[in-house]
Amino acid sequence: MKNETKEKILQHGARLVYKKGFNHTGIGEILKAANVPKGSFYHYFHSKEDFGLKLLDHMAMWAAAVGASALSDKSVTPPERLINFFNAYETNFERMHFQGGCPVGNLCLEMSDQSELFREKLEKTLEQMRHGIANVLEEAVEAKEVSSDLSVKSMAHFIISAWQGTLLQTKVMKSKESIAVFKCIVFEQLLHKQQ
Amino acid sequence: MKNETKEKILQHGARLVYKKGFNHTGIGEILKAANVPKGSFYHYFHSKEDFGLKLLDHMAMWAAAVGASALSDKSVTPPERLINFFNAYETNFERMHFQGGCPVGNLCLEMSDQSELFREKLEKTLEQMRHGIANVLEEAVEAKEVSSDLSVKSMAHFIISAWQGTLLQTKVMKSKESIAVFKCIVFEQLLHKQQ
Repeated sequence: MKNETKEKILQHGARLVYKKGFNHTGIGEILKAANVPKGSFYHYFHSKEDFGLKLLDHMAMWAAAVGASALSDKSVTPPERLINFFNAYETNFERMHFQGGCPVGNLCLEMSDQSELFREKLEKTLEQMRHGIANVLEEAVEAKEVSSDLSVKSMAHFIISAWQGTLLQTKVMKSKESIAVFKCIVFEQLLHKQQ
Repeated sequence: MKNETKEKILQHGARLVYKKGFNHTGIGEILKAANVPKGSFYHYFHSKEDFGLKLLDHMAMWAAAVGASALSDKSVTPPERLINFFNAYETNFERMHFQGGCPVGNLCLEMSDQSELFREKLEKTLEQMRHGIANVLEEAVEAKEVSSDLSVKSMAHFIISAWQGTLLQTKVMKSKESIAVFKCIVFEQLLHKQQ
């Protein structure tokens, strides 16, 4: 029952913070949306920052879930897994009329300079994102399915940069144009198949 | 004198919004920092949104100024202009201990879903950024200094995505690693010289 209340606070918090940003979302507003009594908050969280850190875990899992099955689908080749991964986010983003963007990317720009604990957790979250891409790239290079004239770690790092910026431009432009450009250049020019 | 007061409000506003975000910065706080009487604000701006739109112009010019001279320096080749352009931002960002990031990028993620007027202005600002890069790329392709197997417009679009995401990761990681990866992959793999 206790965990259910905590989960409700995190779920409604995530929805509101995704829409309005962390600093601009009040605790009272979240508790009202979650229909939870005002006194409950400090029973589950030490402070707004502590809540924010747990919220970041929650939102990062939420974001990762969109592409997780595509990335681990061993029934297709590693390059196809990567394409399916980005396609899953594209479909999701389009369904939301290109609103919101990446919940983790939003918090990176909003919170990195405001809380060292937030920054450290965001750094780990970005590292996990890069790691997920690097693992698939590693398999693709081993299988000679993409060009091997690249450092897999650097390429994964660059792909996460390009993807975060693509989502930033898409959130502004409200069209698929930036995603189409991303897919074309990453898959046709950077990760061109060897044969 | 009137314009001087307006300019002071915009300058202090830009500094505070860059640090804390637009929604989290109060008008009273800006006027206090600018040492301007409280009644003055609505003399110069119709609303906080109107102020925000003028602030975006101010911050976009501020951001563009960092790289403007590198981008228009005809004494060096177009690819060198591009490298010097990104180096100028790198130096600036390093001097600020990797705090802040791109003032325009920050507002893209914060404001695109919250105000249609803001979104439209951000869209135009991103278009100008892409246009600046595309012009130099066009010259480089004509001079056969970079590979011509690319659409200049798409490449400029992609470079702005990659750069915005690079600044996002740099703001979190507080190191030059993402910028080094960006320069290596963009200049050595994407825009490789033809000979």
